[in-house]
Amino acid sequence: MDMSKKGYFITLEGCEGSGKSTQLKKLEEFLKNSGVDFVFTREPGGTPIAEQIRKIILDGNNTAMCDEAEALLYASSRVQHIKEKILPAKNQGKIVVCDRYIDSSFAYQAYARGLGIEFVKGVNVYAVENCMPDLTLFLDISPEDAFARKGGADEGDRLEQSGINFHKKVYEGYKTLANDYSQRIVCIDAKKGADEVFDQIVKVLKEREII
Amino acid sequence: MDMSKKGYFITLEGCEGSGKSTQLKKLEEFLKNSGVDFVFTREPGGTPIAEQIRKIILDGNNTAMCDEAEALLYASSRVQHIKEKILPAKNQGKIVVCDRYIDSSFAYQAYARGLGIEFVKGVNVYAVENCMPDLTLFLDISPEDAFARKGGADEGDRLEQSGINFHKKVYEGYKTLANDYSQRIVCIDAKKGADEVFDQIVKVLKEREII
Repeated sequence: MDMSKKGYFITLEGCEGSGKSTQLKKLEEFLKNSGVDFVFTREPGGTPIAEQIRKIILDGNNTAMCDEAEALLYASSRVQHIKEKILPAKNQGKIVVCDRYIDSSFAYQAYARGLGIEFVKGVNVYAVENCMPDLTLFLDISPEDAFARKGGADEGDRLEQSGINFHKKVYEGYKTLANDYSQRIVCIDAKKGADEVFDQIVKVLKEREII
Repeated sequence: MDMSKKGYFITLEGCEGSGKSTQLKKLEEFLKNSGVDFVFTREPGGTPIAEQIRKIILDGNNTAMCDEAEALLYASSRVQHIKEKILPAKNQGKIVVCDRYIDSSFAYQAYARGLGIEFVKGVNVYAVENCMPDLTLFLDISPEDAFARKGGADEGDRLEQSGINFHKKVYEGYKTLANDYSQRIVCIDAKKGADEVFDQIVKVLKEREII
């Protein structure tokens, strides 16, 4: 069954070092070979304006940034991304795959930074009302295991500086979300090897008749 | 009566060319001579992070920016400004004077761009709940009169490119706000000469026992 005719919006989520980049590469190769029409994109960013916002968010010098300002920058980048790229592609019948999306705001800002779900939903009202993912793949691996595997890359990144306790809260946030939105969010066991992880992803895509 | 002991937050609002810069200069000089402890600041901006956001908002090349993303950038810049500068100064007992604030978001985004008051209040919930101005001086002059007086400065500014019809909507938005928040927002007749306009401002400050 070719679901691409009506478009399909898939997001990939996970803690730092959960193997998202590896799985995204595998998924891109797989979709190319499947002959489906797809777009890969990422958050924060995805359009020129959103990339300008991304630079402010990820600038390691911006340590004075308060949590609410950060959440609002993500929300701003997101609505620009939605209107310029995600919805137009989806409306053309494409499969849109996005590296991080609103669940990152829920996990990082609402849960780990403690802003609460209501604040984050409120500032993301455009996304919540107009562009929720059809499917979210959560690469489920604890931050301890993920950090051990990653080995300290991207040390200058402001988000990486937050330390292990912060990432534990992010992980717990994701687990709560996966429980609350169990139809949309599918947990993928990301402790396994890259090929085994990808096999699980393909299985979900086939079950949902996306490919 | 010295109200500066508990701090006081004053905002100046008006359409482009309403004479805000001139009145701010006069007010700064006046407050210096009064010997009160005060801080002048502006929106968007006012802190290093907020100034980075300001650059994205005002960049004439960012014509693709959607209205919701713009409103969220203003809200992000604002919360950073509140936490880093406005509330700390107010809590030290200072008079804080800000060139534009949340009423600009209401007039420009909610009314003129048509996002609606509820959307703009929602994304500005931190300011609404924690840092509303004690007094807002609205320099009341129609955009036709203001543009005639200004004579086309700052033509590269993205906001200036929006045309006279947009600025008429902004003006009507301000008039609605002045009606809805008549205790907080005081209309200053800004069609008069600069000295006469400033006399009205001083009169309000004295009536409110700010100076």
